[in-house]
Amino acid sequence: MYPSSLQALIEAFRTLPGVGEKTAERYALMIAEQPHEETERFAQALLNVKDNLHRCSVCGNLTDGEQCGICKDTDRNHRQIFVVQSPKDVLAMEKTSEYNGVYHVLNGLISSSKGVMPEDLNLQGLLERAKDADEVILATSATMDGETTAMYLDRLLKKECPGILVTRIAHGLPAGGMLDYADEITLSHALSDRKTM
Amino acid sequence: MYPSSLQALIEAFRTLPGVGEKTAERYALMIAEQPHEETERFAQALLNVKDNLHRCSVCGNLTDGEQCGICKDTDRNHRQIFVVQSPKDVLAMEKTSEYNGVYHVLNGLISSSKGVMPEDLNLQGLLERAKDADEVILATSATMDGETTAMYLDRLLKKECPGILVTRIAHGLPAGGMLDYADEITLSHALSDRKTM
Repeated sequence: MYPSSLQALIEAFRTLPGVGEKTAERYALMIAEQPHEETERFAQALLNVKDNLHRCSVCGNLTDGEQCGICKDTDRNHRQIFVVQSPKDVLAMEKTSEYNGVYHVLNGLISSSKGVMPEDLNLQGLLERAKDADEVILATSATMDGETTAMYLDRLLKKECPGILVTRIAHGLPAGGMLDYADEITLSHALSDRKTM
Repeated sequence: MYPSSLQALIEAFRTLPGVGEKTAERYALMIAEQPHEETERFAQALLNVKDNLHRCSVCGNLTDGEQCGICKDTDRNHRQIFVVQSPKDVLAMEKTSEYNGVYHVLNGLISSSKGVMPEDLNLQGLLERAKDADEVILATSATMDGETTAMYLDRLLKKECPGILVTRIAHGLPAGGMLDYADEITLSHALSDRKTM
């Protein structure tokens, strides 16, 4: 129904996560109406990402260089490794400005339902790095796959790097969270991990 | 914080309507992880739209050719013109399969708040086409700007094309709409435009 060039763009937008037909139409029509240079800049931004972006050779985070800015930063504590699922989690943590160690990005979680096995994750580098580290903080999500991965890593790290401190981020009520809206698992974590005031 | 190529893509996605930082991040990270060819196809789809898409010389709808498919279709009734704000509205109406006339796309609505004047709209072509038409159906939205535009067009058409039939699409309760959720204006339209059963 739409002209074929517009239809092709609508279909391209539909491949983005969470974008349905209506949203893709809205995006494509905005592109159709914007100045030529802006669309060229957009297309160039897409291609640049594919040309320049790759995994940091140390931690697996996304970077334009050979190593990411965090791994290259000598002011950070390289003996403390914060293990996360994806580059998004690194950014979320960096926004807190509370952490001065380094990261390790697994690029996935062990998942029986999705068929992701430990060998599909960025693990080899982690074991080598952990040998020179004081602490590995397991910061995978509080989901089934996140917990499975954390348990697997805990066992693996303690076996391969005896004496290393392996910690897990705290679980409990989120900031602003109300008890009557929290699910049972969150509440039972909040109870079992309670602290003396 | 993100590598600069990724940050540039996030900013490109943020120019899309309704896309905030989180969503743009999600889109950009998906692009970062997809195969190279798919991103190239996406970039090409963007550029193709700018190279090929323009306004139909007759009705103002978007088309890859000189005239749009509807204006070229000799099986349609070219003496009945359905006037809409944007190309999206043409598609919405075509999906009903209930209309066999042609369209005229204004590419905007008269709006005092946005400073859009009648001369900013695709009106000249409409007056010329209306001279050969039997009916002009005003199908601008049931918003303030839509009503203003419809009233303006009604007066203009009756002045320039004496004897032409100018109609306005019906206003009332939408399909599936419940009385207690409908606003006062919708309800008063539904009452004043009631039909004998």
